[in-house]
Amino acid sequence: MQLGLIGLGRMGGNMRERLRAAGHEVIGFDHNADKSDAANLAELVEKLAAPRVVWTMVPAGKITEDTIDALSELLSEGDIVIDGGNSKFTDDAPRAARLRAKGIHYLDVGVSGGVWGITNGYALMVGGDAAQVEHCKPIFEALKPAGEFGFAHAGTHGAGHYAKMIHNGIEYGMMQAYGEGYEILMASELVDDVPAVIKSWREGSVVKSWLLDLLDRALDEDPTLANLKGYVEDTGEGRWTVDEAVRLAVPAHVLAASIFTRFESRQDDSPAMKAVAALRQQFGGHAVKR
Amino acid sequence: MQLGLIGLGRMGGNMRERLRAAGHEVIGFDHNADKSDAANLAELVEKLAAPRVVWTMVPAGKITEDTIDALSELLSEGDIVIDGGNSKFTDDAPRAARLRAKGIHYLDVGVSGGVWGITNGYALMVGGDAAQVEHCKPIFEALKPAGEFGFAHAGTHGAGHYAKMIHNGIEYGMMQAYGEGYEILMASELVDDVPAVIKSWREGSVVKSWLLDLLDRALDEDPTLANLKGYVEDTGEGRWTVDEAVRLAVPAHVLAASIFTRFESRQDDSPAMKAVAALRQQFGGHAVKR
Amino acid sequence: MQLGLIGLGRMGGNMRERLRAAGHEVIGFDHNADKSDAANLAELVEKLAAPRVVWTMVPAGKITEDTIDALSELLSEGDIVIDGGNSKFTDDAPRAARLRAKGIHYLDVGVSGGVWGITNGYALMVGGDAAQVEHCKPIFEALKPAGEFGFAHAGTHGAGHYAKMIHNGIEYGMMQAYGEGYEILMASELVDDVPAVIKSWREGSVVKSWLLDLLDRALDEDPTLANLKGYVEDTGEGRWTVDEAVRLAVPAHVLAASIFTRFESRQDDSPAMKAVAALRQQFGGHAVKR
Amino acid sequence: MQLGLIGLGRMGGNMRERLRAAGHEVIGFDHNADKSDAANLAELVEKLAAPRVVWTMVPAGKITEDTIDALSELLSEGDIVIDGGNSKFTDDAPRAARLRAKGIHYLDVGVSGGVWGITNGYALMVGGDAAQVEHCKPIFEALKPAGEFGFAHAGTHGAGHYAKMIHNGIEYGMMQAYGEGYEILMASELVDDVPAVIKSWREGSVVKSWLLDLLDRALDEDPTLANLKGYVEDTGEGRWTVDEAVRLAVPAHVLAASIFTRFESRQDDSPAMKAVAALRQQFGGHAVKR
Repeated sequence: MQLGLIGLGRMGGNMRERLRAAGHEVIGFDHNADKSDAANLAELVEKLAAPRVVWTMVPAGKITEDTIDALSELLSEGDIVIDGGNSKFTDDAPRAARLRAKGIHYLDVGVSGGVWGITNGYALMVGGDAAQVEHCKPIFEALKPAGEFGFAHAGTHGAGHYAKMIHNGIEYGMMQAYGEGYEILMASELVDDVPAVIKSWREGSVVKSWLLDLLDRALDEDPTLANLKGYVEDTGEGRWTVDEAVRLAVPAHVLAASIFTRFESRQDDSPAMKAVAALRQQFGGHAVKR
Repeated sequence: MQLGLIGLGRMGGNMRERLRAAGHEVIGFDHNADKSDAANLAELVEKLAAPRVVWTMVPAGKITEDTIDALSELLSEGDIVIDGGNSKFTDDAPRAARLRAKGIHYLDVGVSGGVWGITNGYALMVGGDAAQVEHCKPIFEALKPAGEFGFAHAGTHGAGHYAKMIHNGIEYGMMQAYGEGYEILMASELVDDVPAVIKSWREGSVVKSWLLDLLDRALDEDPTLANLKGYVEDTGEGRWTVDEAVRLAVPAHVLAASIFTRFESRQDDSPAMKAVAALRQQFGGHAVKR
Repeated sequence: MQLGLIGLGRMGGNMRERLRAAGHEVIGFDHNADKSDAANLAELVEKLAAPRVVWTMVPAGKITEDTIDALSELLSEGDIVIDGGNSKFTDDAPRAARLRAKGIHYLDVGVSGGVWGITNGYALMVGGDAAQVEHCKPIFEALKPAGEFGFAHAGTHGAGHYAKMIHNGIEYGMMQAYGEGYEILMASELVDDVPAVIKSWREGSVVKSWLLDLLDRALDEDPTLANLKGYVEDTGEGRWTVDEAVRLAVPAHVLAASIFTRFESRQDDSPAMKAVAALRQQFGGHAVKR
Repeated sequence: MQLGLIGLGRMGGNMRERLRAAGHEVIGFDHNADKSDAANLAELVEKLAAPRVVWTMVPAGKITEDTIDALSELLSEGDIVIDGGNSKFTDDAPRAARLRAKGIHYLDVGVSGGVWGITNGYALMVGGDAAQVEHCKPIFEALKPAGEFGFAHAGTHGAGHYAKMIHNGIEYGMMQAYGEGYEILMASELVDDVPAVIKSWREGSVVKSWLLDLLDRALDEDPTLANLKGYVEDTGEGRWTVDEAVRLAVPAHVLAASIFTRFESRQDDSPAMKAVAALRQQFGGHAVKR
């Protein structure tokens, strides 16, 4: 089927390729004209036959909001907008309502898979109404991995982004668990060959996973990760997951600790630990670093 | 080759079967005579040709210690003892020394794989000297999964159990990450179909793993886990991992939180939270439950 | 000076008493007519001479919002509204703007002290403009403890509630630290007399505090806290503190853990731990509780 | 009464002074001859009349062990050794047994108070038998603060050091709670005057404490703690507290997080976060720092 795809970066560009390989017709738009199949949104919309399906794959927040608002001026009743970016789930219901006022349908899709999705397929979590999910099935089928897994209609508007948010929260926790275990292994006096231990877990073990495969791959390239700094960014999903845990009164020690350690990884110095150092000096005369 | 195998429970019994299927001769001993191939340890030792290899697969701690001490009275110079149970890594060096005094060699092996190992193979992490690791290779080859992964010679005596300990610590962290994410999904007002979301992650997603496959399997059997209590035991490895993190000054927020939540899951009432409730009542006159 | 005081519950009632003892004229209003000095808000406003100062001490959220909106219809240009309840700091700037549109001034005040404030005085953290802080100084002086501490003009609108929020976050952390230490002491095989240990810390020790005094007091009444359940409510401030930590990228392991343990204290069963139990059963055949 | 006091550093030196001010005769020994009242341990023992009481106040571990072993060669039946250092509680029972074999009594005393103890008195937690506790009461009375608090006979041998260990664990948790709250306040856009907020909590608030007084004192000297690095050492007690929590299956999220953040404060780079950064790069092509 036909799809308009806005945003042809690392994710969107690969998705276009995977969709085309599956026989779909994709009209892509990107601010980078070299990648773009249309000069602007208006031309992209023109090139699509109604009912149109347009998928946005641009940075979450204002850019996504503005893009969808602009689209909503160009699309017609019965068209479908899909946001596959990392929008916050709370944006989806109001956005769906704004589009609905113009007769335009909306689906939110959480997309996981990173740079590997082009070959492995992308896990897709979809929020919205069943009729539109059904209509877009061919697109989802092409993007998802072969086999029975990798796709869910999670619930109503926002449920797709919600599921993706939790996915990322779990991802943070898993990565932190591997990281902490790796660090203890590296500090151990007994274990000589940490990369070999990681490799041994890739089959047969309880902790085998794709992330573990990737850790092994990274250690193959750099066995002590000497070329990396322990500096880790976070995107919104990890934070929103903690906020949701707090809102819903769900204990989330591990997910919260995982995001906090990322914050710490980016601090040059910690005001909290300055205060602790100051206290130790005050009561015990303990030496401090200046 | 020939192997003596002591302990034919859930793990040992399956391992005997997998080894035999690979063509090895296994003389098993278990306190349960129905399972046993020898009447006692002496008979087991007699049935093996020197240099003998005897693998213990019994509960860690006193039972393992006693079994190996008894074995050491029966074995001869040049024989090899392998402990594949969940012994604490600090037991291995003294144990190796005690055996060495009698000319007996020792390997410690961390074994992962659970009830699935019989078909999937077991991930094996080995501590000890290269010569004995080499000698026992056929056994390891039969137990490990097919392919390039699932086996490591991790280091000196204790390194095998150490690697397994960290493996289990990571396992606790991963399980807790999935658990917390699952709980938030269950509490969400947007996500209707939590099992479908879990299923969607099994391919294409960053969080795909064998544990996730098993969570999906559990939800297939009981979609809301209604038949389970949130009561979780822990074995020594998770605790030792935290002790090691503390000893080595490695920050391990996630691994520690994962073991603490297990402790909480088993408490009928929390003395700590009684104290907190008492304090709130004292300063604020806040209502308490009695 | 003259003060209108709305809300004569545990906090407001005591504050009226403390203010009157200091010679101020307080017109109180409460839905409970027995406590009230005015039949309604209109009568309360009538009884005050311009420029009026009216302090709200009612539950945060809709009740506070509605009360202040109602007041704003009755007050005149130049009057001052003070909210001393536990409003969320993000409510303050919009509220100040709404009042300013009618020429009414606004201060937000975080009030700490609990049921002891009537005798010990209340710690007050104030947000708003210096001129109004100055105007209301006599009221603040009467409410705060004697001596140099217990009052701060923290910053602009919202800063008072913000400071109080962080105060409560810290309070949660301190209580949890005491609670955990208490629980370990109670579990220890060596320490016979836990209440005596707590008492020993009340003077001379690094951990002496008012909360510790109150813990000792609670243990005097009930040495093993046998009459309490470890069930702990939370009010908004602890949650907002974690949300702020997340928003500002501040690592807040302790404050977050303190709120999560309260959530746990109120759960009959934990969905997260059900998932963990399910996983253990799946891979290891470990027994579960049903 | 008469007391031998070994170790005249920051703690021991002040204690000698406080004891002398209370009219006790203290014979001190220190490796620094300028401070010492005796040329060596033998001379110290000679200067004391039987039954002697000798208090060690030297670094925990080997130095304390060696000092007490040396003393045990010099003392006589019926003498009493008191260890007031930060020994691990598990050292106490074996040490008491070794001394008992020579007819020498033993008390372990946890001492809190830091550099302020000389004027404020020291909180003392004692482990051992009632008869010796009674015998040494005059010494304890002189060291402890005036008033009813600051002393406990906590239990049998080891209970004094145990109580002190938990005291320090709580201390870590409280300091971390203040530190995190301070950091959020410093990051807030609303609060202009953080030191004023801290000061406001010193009276009337629920979080008032001696540690808070000291934080205020530190901020008086350096309002943004600009002259300090957020680098915090830990002594054994915080680690042992976590080990005990793990051993006794007590959830101790806050105490563990407090020690882990100290570890983090001392790391130049985090191997765990290197692993996390490597994973993000592997699956998502996310930029890393080198």
